[in-house]
Amino acid sequence: MRQFNRVTIIGVGLIGGSIGLAIKKNGLAKEVVGIFRHRRTLKNALRRKAIDKGFMNIRDGVRNADLVVLATSVSSIVRIGLEAMKYAKMGAVLTDVGSTKNCIVEKLEKAARSYSVNFVGSHPMAGSERASVEFARKDLLEGSPCIVTKTAGTNKPALKKIMNFWKSLGGYVKVMTPCQHDRSVALISHLPHIVAFSLAGAIPERELIYAAEGFKDTTRVASSDPDLWADIFLTNKKEAIKACRMFENSYNGIVKALAKSDRRGIVKALGRAKAKRDKFNYGKKTPGQKIAFGSGSRP
Amino acid sequence: MRQFNRVTIIGVGLIGGSIGLAIKKNGLAKEVVGIFRHRRTLKNALRRKAIDKGFMNIRDGVRNADLVVLATSVSSIVRIGLEAMKYAKMGAVLTDVGSTKNCIVEKLEKAARSYSVNFVGSHPMAGSERASVEFARKDLLEGSPCIVTKTAGTNKPALKKIMNFWKSLGGYVKVMTPCQHDRSVALISHLPHIVAFSLAGAIPERELIYAAEGFKDTTRVASSDPDLWADIFLTNKKEAIKACRMFENSYNGIVKALAKSDRRGIVKALGRAKAKRDKFNYGKKTPGQKIAFGSGSRP
Repeated sequence: MRQFNRVTIIGVGLIGGSIGLAIKKNGLAKEVVGIFRHRRTLKNALRRKAIDKGFMNIRDGVRNADLVVLATSVSSIVRIGLEAMKYAKMGAVLTDVGSTKNCIVEKLEKAARSYSVNFVGSHPMAGSERASVEFARKDLLEGSPCIVTKTAGTNKPALKKIMNFWKSLGGYVKVMTPCQHDRSVALISHLPHIVAFSLAGAIPERELIYAAEGFKDTTRVASSDPDLWADIFLTNKKEAIKACRMFENSYNGIVKALAKSDRRGIVKALGRAKAKRDKFNYGKKTPGQKIAFGSGSRP
Repeated sequence: MRQFNRVTIIGVGLIGGSIGLAIKKNGLAKEVVGIFRHRRTLKNALRRKAIDKGFMNIRDGVRNADLVVLATSVSSIVRIGLEAMKYAKMGAVLTDVGSTKNCIVEKLEKAARSYSVNFVGSHPMAGSERASVEFARKDLLEGSPCIVTKTAGTNKPALKKIMNFWKSLGGYVKVMTPCQHDRSVALISHLPHIVAFSLAGAIPERELIYAAEGFKDTTRVASSDPDLWADIFLTNKKEAIKACRMFENSYNGIVKALAKSDRRGIVKALGRAKAKRDKFNYGKKTPGQKIAFGSGSRP
């Protein structure tokens, strides 16, 4: 079902490329346009059929777009969003895919009003430690949580449009305020990254040859891009550090019990952790996920 | 190629069951016998064809075995190993699959001499957070590191036999002292488990509905059995706590840089971690693994 004539994606990497592929798979737009910094990426995106047409500048690329998706790194979304608004047609809707929301939404919602366009913040929580369009997949968003932000200033029809858009791509849409979003992702995304980077950083290189599946999974996200994640942590510093304090409490409890050879204390702490982890069965495309996510009572 | 007439596996869970399936797949023994505590597990193991015959007591099960594999939980290996030695035939070789080695090897190597049998410590580093024979797989050990211990008192022909055995099941065998083993696994296995349990324990349950692949992988091993892991940590307490201190250094470096908004410091720390994680490409059955593990220069 077509929802848009032209969708423009700025930044066609793993997420932007997967969005392009999914739009085309689902026939949501007559045309998908990509905007690039490098010709090589433009060629790759065309070859992967993630876009129909590519531009090397924002002005030409956003012209006549009904929907503009800002899919660049979190540190450049505001700057690029502001530039895109200048050239976007009146009434166009812009959204983003940034991993933090407070800072982005505050600035872009306000700016949108002065350009007679609308901005709605989004965070499709899908991805991988591999970042380029080469790894884009038309089903990347299917079964993934997708958070859409709502503030006192959010335009209601635009919010609806963006919610429908992500739903059509297979995401499980959840609406929350930018603050709620940033607190949640600090815990369930930023903290695991900090911990995984710390863990990979702690192991002497010579020991890696003995590492097996446990180490591999626990540190997988430590293969992610350092610049990208530094910016994510920094744009969500307050909540990320609060999440770290919660981790430290949990970690210190286990290590102190171990130091005291308090077997009961260790088993209790591990048991609490296991009980929580066992409830998390959001495997992609499992019916459990749909039900659990849909029925979540949290805002 | 047959290496044994009778192999007896005590404790036919995920690892013991996978060993049974792999022995049968590779035709390494005329007969695989299992020893059980519960009739239900015996039936499951027979149904899975992980064993040819099952017994509910050690005496009958180890009789005439050329090889006895102690595949119970780490806390019971010494006790069960001592009992098995009483009934094992002269010259039989015993090995284990325990995740810590110092304590087990010291006691069982010494006891073996007085029973005229041989003991060689092993640690096939394969596994999963799912512990029963239901999840056993004939290829579980293929491509996995398998550490075999050597001390001043280790019987050389028995060591050779055990090394060949694990190689035949597809493991990448590495010989080291029990101390070296315990130090290595503290870093690449016990520490990741402590961190994963701590992380799962830290996240408020209501946030779990937003969790995606990053959280899922980073905490996968927190679904492991708390009693089993409490015993592993406790039997390797000194090295596990040393590993924790190394983790804390790495973690504090990142969190302090974040608190100071020191972007360069964060990127540098994440970059170091990523470089190490990227080198770890021990994906199962990738040629990289074989080469990398085989060419490891460390003892």
